[in-house]
Amino acid sequence: MKELEERIQRDGQILGNGILKVDSFVNHQVDAGLMDHCGREFAQRFAKLGATKVLTAEISGIAPALTTALHLGLPVVYARKTKPITMPDQVYLTLAPSHTKGRMVELIISPEYLTHGEKVLIIDDFLATGATILGLIRLGEAAGAKIIGVGALIEKTFEGGRAAIKALGIPVESLASITSMDGGKIVFNGN
Amino acid sequence: MKELEERIQRDGQILGNGILKVDSFVNHQVDAGLMDHCGREFAQRFAKLGATKVLTAEISGIAPALTTALHLGLPVVYARKTKPITMPDQVYLTLAPSHTKGRMVELIISPEYLTHGEKVLIIDDFLATGATILGLIRLGEAAGAKIIGVGALIEKTFEGGRAAIKALGIPVESLASITSMDGGKIVFNGN
Repeated sequence: MKELEERIQRDGQILGNGILKVDSFVNHQVDAGLMDHCGREFAQRFAKLGATKVLTAEISGIAPALTTALHLGLPVVYARKTKPITMPDQVYLTLAPSHTKGRMVELIISPEYLTHGEKVLIIDDFLATGATILGLIRLGEAAGAKIIGVGALIEKTFEGGRAAIKALGIPVESLASITSMDGGKIVFNGN
Repeated sequence: MKELEERIQRDGQILGNGILKVDSFVNHQVDAGLMDHCGREFAQRFAKLGATKVLTAEISGIAPALTTALHLGLPVVYARKTKPITMPDQVYLTLAPSHTKGRMVELIISPEYLTHGEKVLIIDDFLATGATILGLIRLGEAAGAKIIGVGALIEKTFEGGRAAIKALGIPVESLASITSMDGGKIVFNGN
């Protein structure tokens, strides 16, 4: 998606260690209009797959997942990383390594909001190794839901996440696909 | 706002200790359409105050703040509760007691995204004691920004937050104002 690629090229910062900082429009400050356009784009790409729910992980997946859900007319569930007191004792829980936190984090969903037979579209901000998204897929499968697709705003193709998800037979779409950040230069797929 | 009040009456659960569980449409599963309507309502109520940025706190403030920002055509910044590695060393940081966590939490904003002279509209899911929102106000003032208004989806009038904010001369709007949850019954202001 041209608009997102251009924004990453203009405002993204490569911090080293494979970290792309997009805090000025995705992760700390959010460009609401851009998120809306990204949500509309995801909604169009996945429109025919008949999702019944959008699933993401707190925190930075919430914005693109919400706008996607809005354009699809669906509810969105975000997996929690700490269990709030409002959640029942019995939950779906898995562990996933966090790239930006350097440790394992819990992903927790209440069985109240993810149930057998649902068709789930997973939306997140980044697809890198796929660790968080694979965690969400495990939670969905534990609940007896079917994962019908995975969408990420920004993919780093050189970290292998897409292959791991496609190996499960799940379609993957990313709106900006980065093939290299070598030498401080961001290169997009097809450019 | 009638739509939100009706939804709280139908799907909200009183858990005791003054906790109102709205996890099925605000806090874990989010009704994207309802959030959009709430954002539109906030945008209308604050339209004339000339905000330049919407500010909230992760996690559950993000959805209503994003839709409000969308309707106002503004960016939204969400205060982080843990400092990500993408954030500079020098930050705005304050502590606020968390009702649902039972401990103090940090609220952190990068000086990159909140600057002198900005006119800030704070949006959050709940206004109870006002502790989180007062923390956001302190961060805004530390940055030299002017807080032009505070909007909350759900206010519990019996916890005193509104008075603490209004004492600072800041206008407060809530979309569903609960005056009592005694005996397991939710009573709204004016009903």
